[in-house]
Amino acid sequence: MNTEKPNPSYFDPFFKPKGIAMIGASSDPNKWGFRVLANIIAGGFKGLICPINPKAGTLFGLKVYPSLKRLPGLVDLAVITIPADRVLKAIQECAEQGIRSAVIITSGFSETGPEGQALENELVRMARERGLHFIGPNSMGIFSAASQLHALMPPIQPLHSGVSFVSQSGNVGVQMLAWGIERGVGFSKFVSSGTEGDIHCEDYLEYFTTDPDTKIILAYIEGVESGRRFLEIGQKATQTKPLIFFKGGKSDAGSKAAQSHSGALAGRYSLYKAASRQAGIIEAETTDSLLDYAAAFLYYPLPRGNKIAVLTRGGGWGVVAADACREWGLEVPLLSDRLLQKLNRVLPPYWSHGNPIDMAATLNPEAMPMCLEALIQEEEVDGIIAQGVEVRLRGPMMIERLRKMNLLDGINREVIADEHEHIPLIMELMAAYKKPVIMVSGVSSSPRAVSYSGRESVVFPTPERAARAMAKLWQYSRYLQGL
Amino acid sequence: MNTEKPNPSYFDPFFKPKGIAMIGASSDPNKWGFRVLANIIAGGFKGLICPINPKAGTLFGLKVYPSLKRLPGLVDLAVITIPADRVLKAIQECAEQGIRSAVIITSGFSETGPEGQALENELVRMARERGLHFIGPNSMGIFSAASQLHALMPPIQPLHSGVSFVSQSGNVGVQMLAWGIERGVGFSKFVSSGTEGDIHCEDYLEYFTTDPDTKIILAYIEGVESGRRFLEIGQKATQTKPLIFFKGGKSDAGSKAAQSHSGALAGRYSLYKAASRQAGIIEAETTDSLLDYAAAFLYYPLPRGNKIAVLTRGGGWGVVAADACREWGLEVPLLSDRLLQKLNRVLPPYWSHGNPIDMAATLNPEAMPMCLEALIQEEEVDGIIAQGVEVRLRGPMMIERLRKMNLLDGINREVIADEHEHIPLIMELMAAYKKPVIMVSGVSSSPRAVSYSGRESVVFPTPERAARAMAKLWQYSRYLQGL
Repeated sequence: MNTEKPNPSYFDPFFKPKGIAMIGASSDPNKWGFRVLANIIAGGFKGLICPINPKAGTLFGLKVYPSLKRLPGLVDLAVITIPADRVLKAIQECAEQGIRSAVIITSGFSETGPEGQALENELVRMARERGLHFIGPNSMGIFSAASQLHALMPPIQPLHSGVSFVSQSGNVGVQMLAWGIERGVGFSKFVSSGTEGDIHCEDYLEYFTTDPDTKIILAYIEGVESGRRFLEIGQKATQTKPLIFFKGGKSDAGSKAAQSHSGALAGRYSLYKAASRQAGIIEAETTDSLLDYAAAFLYYPLPRGNKIAVLTRGGGWGVVAADACREWGLEVPLLSDRLLQKLNRVLPPYWSHGNPIDMAATLNPEAMPMCLEALIQEEEVDGIIAQGVEVRLRGPMMIERLRKMNLLDGINREVIADEHEHIPLIMELMAAYKKPVIMVSGVSSSPRAVSYSGRESVVFPTPERAARAMAKLWQYSRYLQGL
Repeated sequence: MNTEKPNPSYFDPFFKPKGIAMIGASSDPNKWGFRVLANIIAGGFKGLICPINPKAGTLFGLKVYPSLKRLPGLVDLAVITIPADRVLKAIQECAEQGIRSAVIITSGFSETGPEGQALENELVRMARERGLHFIGPNSMGIFSAASQLHALMPPIQPLHSGVSFVSQSGNVGVQMLAWGIERGVGFSKFVSSGTEGDIHCEDYLEYFTTDPDTKIILAYIEGVESGRRFLEIGQKATQTKPLIFFKGGKSDAGSKAAQSHSGALAGRYSLYKAASRQAGIIEAETTDSLLDYAAAFLYYPLPRGNKIAVLTRGGGWGVVAADACREWGLEVPLLSDRLLQKLNRVLPPYWSHGNPIDMAATLNPEAMPMCLEALIQEEEVDGIIAQGVEVRLRGPMMIERLRKMNLLDGINREVIADEHEHIPLIMELMAAYKKPVIMVSGVSSSPRAVSYSGRESVVFPTPERAARAMAKLWQYSRYLQGL
């Protein structure tokens, strides 16, 4: 009996399968066997897809096979949606046909009580006996960018990037995939780990640590099997890539709910906090910030220190940004005379002469680029929070309204659009100087992906969220520097 | 010489002017005298509008007057955009023509240094001598829903509602007006108070306290003249309406920036915290939460206690919500056997049997309405956080993709859209039971206004933001109950 923990090599068929058997394929759109299959096909999976259903026939133009016997090519992954009481038999048949990896979407196991727990125990025993490993049960599925594999319950097609994400909640997980689309956070691999009968959260984290396609690791964790192993994996991971986690079950009520949800013994939150400090792991305090931090690590270089220049068009937003920097442990230092003099040459006489650099609503569109260049060159500046990186005064909208009112007679209609856009320049500066210039724009009210001539980034909606993200970049940078 | 603080009656011409003189009206779209005038006209102000410019002529089809003499009707408010060195004279002329209220948008006063401070002092002295009161200088303008008055620098047309808002930052203020449009937060009155040469933040707060159109008071505060007066006004205000503030200048760096921005001596943050506790004033910790709380007080009834039921479709989101409730001082109590039995009749056998009420991804669209009705009727539930109040599985999108791939042969195309919408029902339940059911939906990633058959509300994007908002409703309710 194989009772070893899965070795990372077991993971390849999950994320790079050659062929998939969809056990429970259905023509009934109300069944998950229809939806997951549809998502796999619509997602563009390039390998072999074998729908399995005793009724045979065809589905989405594909031949349906009555069983796993006599499949037309190599199948190394099974995706299972049939009812719980038939899963054991299916797993047995998989093993018989040499399929050693399965994603069990079916629910009704340990999450439902002692009876389900017994069924799950039996499932694990049988799978290990036969050298088969499975994700789930009660998983909402997996995603892999490399294989264009969308074995997911909801029809989400995530962006692609170097973020790999294990979630002990399917609902939280797929929501992040969906939010990531507008926030510019793409994924390399995603797994909804379900009740973790076989493969545990720590196993995925370990795999992501060694996976070359994974640049950033994300995790929604309710509880791990071994806190010590989590810490060890974290220490290894953070040597080469950031690991960002959100902890579900921080409170009495939350951890009680977690126990009923994932069966996880949530473990004391303080242990996770300590692990995070010791291993350079980043904690996301809210579900929103989980994606904020992923975006920050994806698109912004690490600051070498914590001395932040705050650039603003309006004094109030400068105040808010400075407060947020201090709240999150960043410095907003005085500027050197030399730098002040450089800025004096760019800015109108009534600028703030300090940090935050309040450009005092100057109408000169060149002021911001010149300030940014002046600031980023200086040793005394480790990073910049740049507010108002795009200006859209909605002037044209107002003019249109007046035109409709027939009130523009005698007016110079060549109204400037008054839309400035400094985002491309900022992306260039960051690439050149390798310092983070976190962009803030009120144009949208949540983080927003931006893309110019092949470069991509994300703009934050408030200085508070930008400062929080900068602080996490600094936390990781400091850890790497051994400070 | 009139050195009295302005009496609330002074405010009427600001927010309900009969006629406006726009001093500095211009046909040059690069000047604020063009833009503010354009915004006033485009905004639909119904009273008399008299553009003033020595060049006379016409502008937007309106006759331009060379001076304030011989205006064609009653003008009781001046909006001033001419350069600082000419403002004193303009104010003098206003007083001569019986105009006793002015909004001074012009900058270049105390915010620029000692010289500007001297000019501002002279302005205040002169205005008070003549019984004239002014907003600003360095104001970004005012808005009044009752008069459709949009004397604002940016072309924003806020929604209308019972929120009145004084902001010691113009930029923060107008950003809130703009964000309010999508987040369902409308305004009754808005004032960007500028450097507060004459009328101070406390004065506006006092006016809003007695103003019958103001149901909720909002403030962005860097510093007040008198902490004691702020506390007294707060105590009076909160007897009849919530007062929500965001404090700029909480940290060393922030308060230094505030001093250079608004000239405000930011005052110790701890004093504001204490005032908030003593007077039932609500603090918004972030600029995002300022609007979140305004929306919560606008659209949700106050809970009578802090016992919250968390309703969820997915276990993970229930865990997150429970943690957030506890973090913000709300209870997530055990449910009575009676209530559990009621829920048992509605939910599948494997539901969580606890609070959070995890409906365990039941596909029955009636489960959520039935649970909500069961919960809201019970004494043991003071409020509900309802997650997943709308389901949009993007099924149709996926089906369309398959259709384009010509892969739907033999498939029952009557795929259910699988979109449920429980928002209208929740609005009805809240109206009937006077308990808050704060709605959470992942469909958008920021708070979103919703409207059904004449009822309006706002949906929160995460349970954390919903819980935070619920906690503030409870804070105010507890204060009113003397608990």
